[in-house]
Amino acid sequence: MTAYEIILRKRDGDELSSDEIRFMVEGFLAGDVADYQMSAFLMAVFFVGMTDAETETLTRVMLGSGATLDLSRVEGAKVDKHSTGGVGDKLSLVIAPVAAAAGVRVPMISGRGLGHTGGTLDKLESIPGLKTDFASGDVARLVDEVGMAIVGQSPEVAPADRRMYALRDVTATIECVPLIVGSILSKKLAAGLDALVLDVKVGRGAFMGTLETARRLAQALIATADRLGLPAVALLTDMESPLGRTVGNALEVVEAIDVLSGGGPPDVRETSLAIAARMIHLAGLEPVPAAALVRAEAVLTDGSALGVFERFVAAQGGDAAAVRDPSRLPRAANTREVVSPRPGHVVAIDALEIGLASLGLGAGRTTVDDPIDPAVGLEIVAPVGAAVSAGDPLAVVHWNDPTGIAAAVDRVGAAFALGDERPEPRSRLIEVLECEHRAP
Amino acid sequence: MTAYEIILRKRDGDELSSDEIRFMVEGFLAGDVADYQMSAFLMAVFFVGMTDAETETLTRVMLGSGATLDLSRVEGAKVDKHSTGGVGDKLSLVIAPVAAAAGVRVPMISGRGLGHTGGTLDKLESIPGLKTDFASGDVARLVDEVGMAIVGQSPEVAPADRRMYALRDVTATIECVPLIVGSILSKKLAAGLDALVLDVKVGRGAFMGTLETARRLAQALIATADRLGLPAVALLTDMESPLGRTVGNALEVVEAIDVLSGGGPPDVRETSLAIAARMIHLAGLEPVPAAALVRAEAVLTDGSALGVFERFVAAQGGDAAAVRDPSRLPRAANTREVVSPRPGHVVAIDALEIGLASLGLGAGRTTVDDPIDPAVGLEIVAPVGAAVSAGDPLAVVHWNDPTGIAAAVDRVGAAFALGDERPEPRSRLIEVLECEHRAP
Repeated sequence: MTAYEIILRKRDGDELSSDEIRFMVEGFLAGDVADYQMSAFLMAVFFVGMTDAETETLTRVMLGSGATLDLSRVEGAKVDKHSTGGVGDKLSLVIAPVAAAAGVRVPMISGRGLGHTGGTLDKLESIPGLKTDFASGDVARLVDEVGMAIVGQSPEVAPADRRMYALRDVTATIECVPLIVGSILSKKLAAGLDALVLDVKVGRGAFMGTLETARRLAQALIATADRLGLPAVALLTDMESPLGRTVGNALEVVEAIDVLSGGGPPDVRETSLAIAARMIHLAGLEPVPAAALVRAEAVLTDGSALGVFERFVAAQGGDAAAVRDPSRLPRAANTREVVSPRPGHVVAIDALEIGLASLGLGAGRTTVDDPIDPAVGLEIVAPVGAAVSAGDPLAVVHWNDPTGIAAAVDRVGAAFALGDERPEPRSRLIEVLECEHRAP
Repeated sequence: MTAYEIILRKRDGDELSSDEIRFMVEGFLAGDVADYQMSAFLMAVFFVGMTDAETETLTRVMLGSGATLDLSRVEGAKVDKHSTGGVGDKLSLVIAPVAAAAGVRVPMISGRGLGHTGGTLDKLESIPGLKTDFASGDVARLVDEVGMAIVGQSPEVAPADRRMYALRDVTATIECVPLIVGSILSKKLAAGLDALVLDVKVGRGAFMGTLETARRLAQALIATADRLGLPAVALLTDMESPLGRTVGNALEVVEAIDVLSGGGPPDVRETSLAIAARMIHLAGLEPVPAAALVRAEAVLTDGSALGVFERFVAAQGGDAAAVRDPSRLPRAANTREVVSPRPGHVVAIDALEIGLASLGLGAGRTTVDDPIDPAVGLEIVAPVGAAVSAGDPLAVVHWNDPTGIAAAVDRVGAAFALGDERPEPRSRLIEVLECEHRAP
């Protein structure tokens, strides 16, 4: 068996055996398969794809390449959610406390922002003192005591994924369903979960631009999770326009707290509850999703989810008083309004352009080593559907560094599409996919 | 412009600009584009292909990456031929002297054998003393004085091709038409040719197994040559069974001398004359291919081609007496007959199996550093169409090292397909492709 033969067989459309996939991935980690062979292999996979069996093996091999989180001391069903990433996506900060307040154990492994999409860890770290870097034993203790933890990926988990992802990132092989599935599921399986809810975003601000590609990814994720014995549900959710009214780290934390306090934008509230309900259902705490949704609404309404969030902030070393007093969070020194050039209705807000505007203000990263400014970002004053007169504010930009402000204001203005008719209101929730072979 | 963006655009089917192709190839040579990026790019090209304009640019950039041969002192039209490689393919040893005897200047750049296909340089070097490694000025002198030279590729020519080929060889991206075209034509253009004849082999012993793939390669070769201002003609020739009656270095030289002396197997004689005639025609020495064929036959019949070959051997330092006395060439110490297990007709001889048998005897190389034995190989006693009785010899194996002899004899036996009916005789010459846009 040689790397050459395996690349050739994949290139020519043959199904690879488990041994061949293992040879390729483990050989790459050991240095026996050269990086130029792995990158050619990954490009061949991009074009040819992988069967369900190949994707399952790839995930298993990537999982087996590293350490797993030992959460055996945690009682109860451990369920996480994973989002494919979007703009203004602060849902994890609402979902985790809602699910935990309803009795789910939530050991959430999150990431950082890159490009136009934000990252949950960056948002959380805008709370003074809050840490996201914990050893395995500490994660178990946090989940046990608080019901939830939101932490970064340990470098010992799935090193094959980290090495392969770094190569994919510079060889244009990121957008490949079986490789995405292996990457996501190998890391989630390493956390020893009992179930997983996947939030697959669709639209301008999402990784998957079309419903068709998003659905294909969602199907592959739940089919592979099923083969690996991990009950999973995928929700396709709309990411044409930014989620909620804020984009930027501290601004998004404030909005999440608003939702946990019973207010906040309806789309953030409803999408968070729908996902949390699926976690509650998969944890076996309610027999049907509808009952789980009622329970999720109840823990939001009675303040218990907010209470969990406060305890979580404190447990991870953050300033818990900031939860009740958001003025303790970082604020930008300056704001500037972006106004409507004409009367009409907001018919669309381009999530990608808004994400890039926020990135330009310093809220995100172009490369993994860039510093970020937790205070900057923007508030959407006139969401999709709002009626505006000429000169009315569409958005408020929060800024510190004057370098990028003019370009960001232009981008924000250009992101708003105005029309004469009020657009039909639509739900963020497009579709729910469950595996047919397994009753969740 | 970044390598990432260029890989992405190629992957997604966009046509690359000249600047982008130049950035990729020159960046790779300079070390700015990593080998893992180049290999992913090459795999994307394998799947997406290249337009004629892209292939032209690739060839130009590869040509421009290195030195060119200065043959300006050579008077007359300089024409070379290139074969995509086969089994028993000693045609160059006949074609070059025939074309040179007819007045064509033939600065032939040849290669060495690898795998089941032989190489012209290895065959020539079985002539005691003959050298194929000459500096540019010496090549010009040889062509000027003798009318022909057959030499190896200078390492200064097209280093981009050498680097890219080494990567393709270990990443399963060899079999890709635009990359093959760039590789062949960049090296031929570096020799300062006035025209080129391409012998694209088809069948079991060839690089291109089917007529369709061979035709696609031939069309791309002549179309790109045309765009680059190099008049070219491609012949598709049959490589299902080995060419002629011998496979192995010295054995093939003897057969080539037989043809130059007016004898030899009809298929070697006819294919060589057809290709030499195209060179004579492209050189402008005859107005139509049919007249060029008559001229080629004349210089073969009157002995002048054999005379050129003798002078060529002497000029390149070889034992010219061996041309009239083949007993001066290396001979294997032992022979073994492979006999027919049944009466009937030889309906096919698998060129790939014969090539592998010859390789196993030591006549070829598995890796570029393997030594070869010039004396070993095999003679086909019963060619396709021959009637045999049980026990009649099919082939004679010439061997020195006992290690591989049993396996080689088995392979040779298995390569012969016997049937009850005599197969229809067929010509080696399948098709001639000329560029439509240019009268050659």
